[in-house]
Amino acid sequence: MCGVGAYGPPVCTCANCQTTWRRLQQLNPYTMWSPPAETRLPNIERNKMARRIKIYEGKAKILYEGPEPGTIVQYFKDDATAFNAEKMEVIDGKGVLNNRLSEFFMTGLNNIGVPTHFLKRLNMREQLVRACEIIPLEIIVRNYAAGTICTRLGLEEGAALPRPIVEYCYKDDALGDPLVSEEHIAAFGWASQQDMDDVLSLALRVNDFMSGVMMAVGIRLVDFKIEIGRVYDGDFQRLVVADEISPDSCRLWDIETGRKLDKDVFRRDLGNLTDAYTEVARRLGVMPKNAAPMGKPTLIN
Amino acid sequence: MCGVGAYGPPVCTCANCQTTWRRLQQLNPYTMWSPPAETRLPNIERNKMARRIKIYEGKAKILYEGPEPGTIVQYFKDDATAFNAEKMEVIDGKGVLNNRLSEFFMTGLNNIGVPTHFLKRLNMREQLVRACEIIPLEIIVRNYAAGTICTRLGLEEGAALPRPIVEYCYKDDALGDPLVSEEHIAAFGWASQQDMDDVLSLALRVNDFMSGVMMAVGIRLVDFKIEIGRVYDGDFQRLVVADEISPDSCRLWDIETGRKLDKDVFRRDLGNLTDAYTEVARRLGVMPKNAAPMGKPTLIN
Repeated sequence: MCGVGAYGPPVCTCANCQTTWRRLQQLNPYTMWSPPAETRLPNIERNKMARRIKIYEGKAKILYEGPEPGTIVQYFKDDATAFNAEKMEVIDGKGVLNNRLSEFFMTGLNNIGVPTHFLKRLNMREQLVRACEIIPLEIIVRNYAAGTICTRLGLEEGAALPRPIVEYCYKDDALGDPLVSEEHIAAFGWASQQDMDDVLSLALRVNDFMSGVMMAVGIRLVDFKIEIGRVYDGDFQRLVVADEISPDSCRLWDIETGRKLDKDVFRRDLGNLTDAYTEVARRLGVMPKNAAPMGKPTLIN
Repeated sequence: MCGVGAYGPPVCTCANCQTTWRRLQQLNPYTMWSPPAETRLPNIERNKMARRIKIYEGKAKILYEGPEPGTIVQYFKDDATAFNAEKMEVIDGKGVLNNRLSEFFMTGLNNIGVPTHFLKRLNMREQLVRACEIIPLEIIVRNYAAGTICTRLGLEEGAALPRPIVEYCYKDDALGDPLVSEEHIAAFGWASQQDMDDVLSLALRVNDFMSGVMMAVGIRLVDFKIEIGRVYDGDFQRLVVADEISPDSCRLWDIETGRKLDKDVFRRDLGNLTDAYTEVARRLGVMPKNAAPMGKPTLIN
């Protein structure tokens, strides 16, 4: 994992980032760009920035305090975990791809008026997001049967569900993120009824939008997981889509071939995970676009 | 306009259809397919089918009675009209493209549980749809300012709207489809309050889905128009998206260049309309996919 932060040099210099970046550049020579020397911060600045405060380190991301109150820097690691972290591996370039893909989906959601925590991408591995109070639930939307629902309810993988099914799991690694019903959520006060109405409506809007995105590039959105947080604007509270939306948190199958383009490739040893994620990014034109410098150079462009 | 119906030969033989089809095939040689001779109906059958009953002829489509009660065959013409039919032209291949694109969008909506009237595509210019009682409103959803809203409210074309705005116009060509409010709709009984709640919810879901579809292929969904109809299942009534969803009924701008890929190309003489629609179809992979025969040959595949 590279140690260069959001405010370090404009291009992260660790081997993983460089390798991934070179591979991505091969997709489109238009993305070649060398940052002008004067945008590099002097070493003393870099060191100052390197001292920023780590808030939390999870399985796939690290959160740092952001430059302004109410902001957080979300760093995407290359670590892949599955089965509640029983299986672990470092997948070169996964963090770079997920940072870009999550930016793409969150920007799209912001544009259609589904609020998210996303503010902007800072560099290859980091994005600036709004600090929020995460509702301790994994919100899962399923269009087709796959994963735990198959064993739990005896469904065949890939079976179409009668309608999109929204499930809630209580976020607790020690307990293995157990399925809960709205009854548990209300009884333990994890979220109010008003919150849960909004959570359901947000989850279904994300499903409509993401189904469209994926269908347009020949991919079936089988299911996905989001997290939702509360942000406070003065006295008002509102809910935003938080965490990430990426092939780590979705099941994506090629419509024609059924090829899996998500973390199941890693869970089940079905091939190279970066290849699968790169394929999703390529179809969405995520890499070639944005990657050309526009106006003031941002950190990695 | 070709005169071959849904139950005629598997491939329409008129010059327009053939030319368009050849152009589409050039996009991907995989789509080449010759229908087996035995699927061609004898002449007597064709004649019988040619005698089917025309229900309605509009500006861009003709409706025929379908093969079963409660079904309708929707035929896509090549006629383009604008400014309430003051400007008219025949655009070779437009009907073929809109038939395919509308199939693509309606199928996607059906898949995510937004009910539509679409049942299946029959051939290059025709699709089978459920008969429904059309609510006499054009339902317009706007994400950016364009068209009539600019002159009406003094907005600049392309200005982002504070949130998606849903407008209703009373469908009446003689009156020029005037803008109406929910007050008019209720007072004249065009739709009940329950209907209008459902109409709004359907319109916003279509917007979320279509925004996703378009964003994935680098297109901005500026606005679109849908029509909604009532279908009766026994004693129950439900609403379905009807008519068509195509570049005739959407404003689509390339995100990078701002190039218009919709009927404004015709309205404002900005170039070749078929090229614009073909570009949309190409990006969505609509032509190469579906076009290969799968199992039993359908009429044109």
